[in-house]
Amino acid sequence: MSSVAIALVHHPVLDRQGDVITTAITNLDLHDMARSACTYGVRAFFVVHPVLAQRELALRVKTHWVSGSGARRIPTREPAMALIDVVASLEDVYEKLDGRSNIDLYTTSARSDERTPSSYEQARARMAAAQKTTLILFGTGWGLAAEVLDDADVCLAPIAGAHPTGYNHLSVRAACAIVLDRLMGR
Amino acid sequence: MSSVAIALVHHPVLDRQGDVITTAITNLDLHDMARSACTYGVRAFFVVHPVLAQRELALRVKTHWVSGSGARRIPTREPAMALIDVVASLEDVYEKLDGRSNIDLYTTSARSDERTPSSYEQARARMAAAQKTTLILFGTGWGLAAEVLDDADVCLAPIAGAHPTGYNHLSVRAACAIVLDRLMGR
Repeated sequence: MSSVAIALVHHPVLDRQGDVITTAITNLDLHDMARSACTYGVRAFFVVHPVLAQRELALRVKTHWVSGSGARRIPTREPAMALIDVVASLEDVYEKLDGRSNIDLYTTSARSDERTPSSYEQARARMAAAQKTTLILFGTGWGLAAEVLDDADVCLAPIAGAHPTGYNHLSVRAACAIVLDRLMGR
Repeated sequence: MSSVAIALVHHPVLDRQGDVITTAITNLDLHDMARSACTYGVRAFFVVHPVLAQRELALRVKTHWVSGSGARRIPTREPAMALIDVVASLEDVYEKLDGRSNIDLYTTSARSDERTPSSYEQARARMAAAQKTTLILFGTGWGLAAEVLDDADVCLAPIAGAHPTGYNHLSVRAACAIVLDRLMGR
């Protein structure tokens, strides 16, 4: 399998009305997704935010747990938080992974729409055979904007639970854990 | 399949040194686990805490999202948070589910130990054939105390990721999402 990276996108994402917005960073997103990424052998966890003050906040959180007092208090948090790479845009993520043409881009969405979704079996097989770096994008707010979904090589299917009404309003932290387990779990 | 309930246990759980402690309630545990439970068709989400002030806090959070201004702002949160049932002890959970003898009790742990772990395939088959209510316990802190693990009918295996060192320090929010997906996902 090629190496796998994930990214948590704070812009461009949607709000409840479907408008494109920028969301604020949530501290526990960084912890939970870093810990899940580390558990499943993900190579990098990109935190994407266009606002400098928000990137500085994310970096301070990372530093506290990688080389500050947090690392001394809970040493198992260090290898997870060390995976965090804070960048301003998706273009910066692509550049860090040697360019968009060297990336197999996966998007996630809780909504079924006109895009053809890929099953997790299909995606797992594709990852096993991939030559490019696999990059899986997770959206905050009400999900990734259309311009991001439109650029995907693989649109992962919404996670179907067992609720009779089809309720699937998972947190991005839970969705990330489930997606990594489905694609990379043993 | 019989009905399934989950419980988040704040006592008795372990600290880093392996001593039995009581942990504080984390707001996002309630949201994330309620949303995961609702997505997978879980019947009830018990929040177990021996301290009255902490139970009152959990109830205030639930009320805000079920009938307060939170419910008006994000209506999809209501059916999830309505699953929350705040109780003082595991004995109270058992009583609400018609007694321990009517419960098939599953425990979760990140550690492999002398107890014989059940695979998720085995557990899924057992749940499909179960007559009793399935109750899955999740521990906060450094995991469920030995007295709880010793009482289990099924000890679910630690979640194995793909990290070369076997790193599996997932958040309880992520672990719950993965366990429900493995046992009840489609």
